[in-house]
Amino acid sequence: MKTTLIGSGNVAWHLGKALQQAGHEIVAVYSPTAAHREALAEVLAPAKAVDSLDLRTTDAELFVIAVPDAAIASVASALQVPEGAIIVHTSGSQPLAALQGIAGARPGVFYPLQTFSKSKAVDFSTIPILLEAEDKQTLQVLQGVASTISKEVHQVDPNKRKQLHLAAVFACNFTNHLLGISRQLLQQAALPDTLLQPLIQETITKAMQQHPFQVQTGPAVRHDQNVIEEHLQLLQNQPLYQQVYQLLSRSIQVQHPKK
Amino acid sequence: MKTTLIGSGNVAWHLGKALQQAGHEIVAVYSPTAAHREALAEVLAPAKAVDSLDLRTTDAELFVIAVPDAAIASVASALQVPEGAIIVHTSGSQPLAALQGIAGARPGVFYPLQTFSKSKAVDFSTIPILLEAEDKQTLQVLQGVASTISKEVHQVDPNKRKQLHLAAVFACNFTNHLLGISRQLLQQAALPDTLLQPLIQETITKAMQQHPFQVQTGPAVRHDQNVIEEHLQLLQNQPLYQQVYQLLSRSIQVQHPKK
Repeated sequence: MKTTLIGSGNVAWHLGKALQQAGHEIVAVYSPTAAHREALAEVLAPAKAVDSLDLRTTDAELFVIAVPDAAIASVASALQVPEGAIIVHTSGSQPLAALQGIAGARPGVFYPLQTFSKSKAVDFSTIPILLEAEDKQTLQVLQGVASTISKEVHQVDPNKRKQLHLAAVFACNFTNHLLGISRQLLQQAALPDTLLQPLIQETITKAMQQHPFQVQTGPAVRHDQNVIEEHLQLLQNQPLYQQVYQLLSRSIQVQHPKK
Repeated sequence: MKTTLIGSGNVAWHLGKALQQAGHEIVAVYSPTAAHREALAEVLAPAKAVDSLDLRTTDAELFVIAVPDAAIASVASALQVPEGAIIVHTSGSQPLAALQGIAGARPGVFYPLQTFSKSKAVDFSTIPILLEAEDKQTLQVLQGVASTISKEVHQVDPNKRKQLHLAAVFACNFTNHLLGISRQLLQQAALPDTLLQPLIQETITKAMQQHPFQVQTGPAVRHDQNVIEEHLQLLQNQPLYQQVYQLLSRSIQVQHPKK
């Protein structure tokens, strides 16, 4: 499918390469920054680097907006495409409606559920792609394209996408913060940052193989009040972390009542 | 070094195999359960299965107590060993003093910082081993043994071991609980359990390569109050999770103030 990319960041970069490798032709790459659009167009040759969002004469059927969430609205208001073209954004948190103002276009969401770094190769085939569209026909086209690059293609309605985002905040954003607190605690004791890494990796691996609640370990699930008190004592000069410790211990104990 | 194992659980199993592969002779395996001691003794042949904790005539210099934390005290009170033998436990949370009542013995801690499953092979060489002993000579012997099976051998004093345990509660126990909440949220929306797994794995991998606070993402670090309010609304029937969401968002925002 002839595709134009709007954006030249990590998502555009990896998605563009995956689409090209699957046999889709990348017709053009837009970015307001000359160096960025030219670099990505070169990688995706024979793609053309373009500097205008008036893309009405572009020979493409699919336009992929892969820009930061905050920039989607301004891109959408300036973008012009051929009649009947499909336009998707790649954001997990923005509504389909963010694209509804574009004349003659069929809007959709094409959200790869992964975090990308430019320097790191990714295996797109295992990355879930979440799709949304206003009509069945557009959805079918997007499903066709998505399934050429990933084995995990899901259609999700707006409510499910919101709940998924909420679940990701717990599993990724909050988890990352706890790993940061843990790293601080190691540093306070002059212990090496890497000391817990094998244990962390094994914890995550186990939590993926079984329901995490079934493999919960630690003082809270054992209702070991002595250790809990000792830990709260160690945190006496860090009252916010003390609160986090207390609340998460309570949540674990509500989930796993004393036998 | 001639070694006797007290216990036949996951730690005894994996540690026994690692010691044997490194050239140490496992002389005997004790467990109160005949089937357990015999199974492990067979794996560690020519080790003998023994059913008594009077091990004074056993030809071993090192006795490794690898039993559940709650059983250490009763094992220690019954155990008898040759004069001058080194006895270690393998617990992260129990003090060295748990072994101080054993006549004529030199107590120590030999704590492999990992969670083990019997069915899963482990590469012991990457597992940190934390050592503690009362005297320098005992510590040196333990360092010699530990370094034959692991590249990551650390001596830690009791205070550091406590802080390490606290850090592990944040990085492993609490993280696992959040992954459980996330899994529940997916299930509530009838989304597949596996959907977030590539993103979770990548989040953890990144958090190990850089300080987690430097790669924090999500609505809290962006101070995106609209999304935060929407998420709290989605959690309105789960007040405890709502509290967890609020407190962790606040902790993230304290760490990353609005610019």
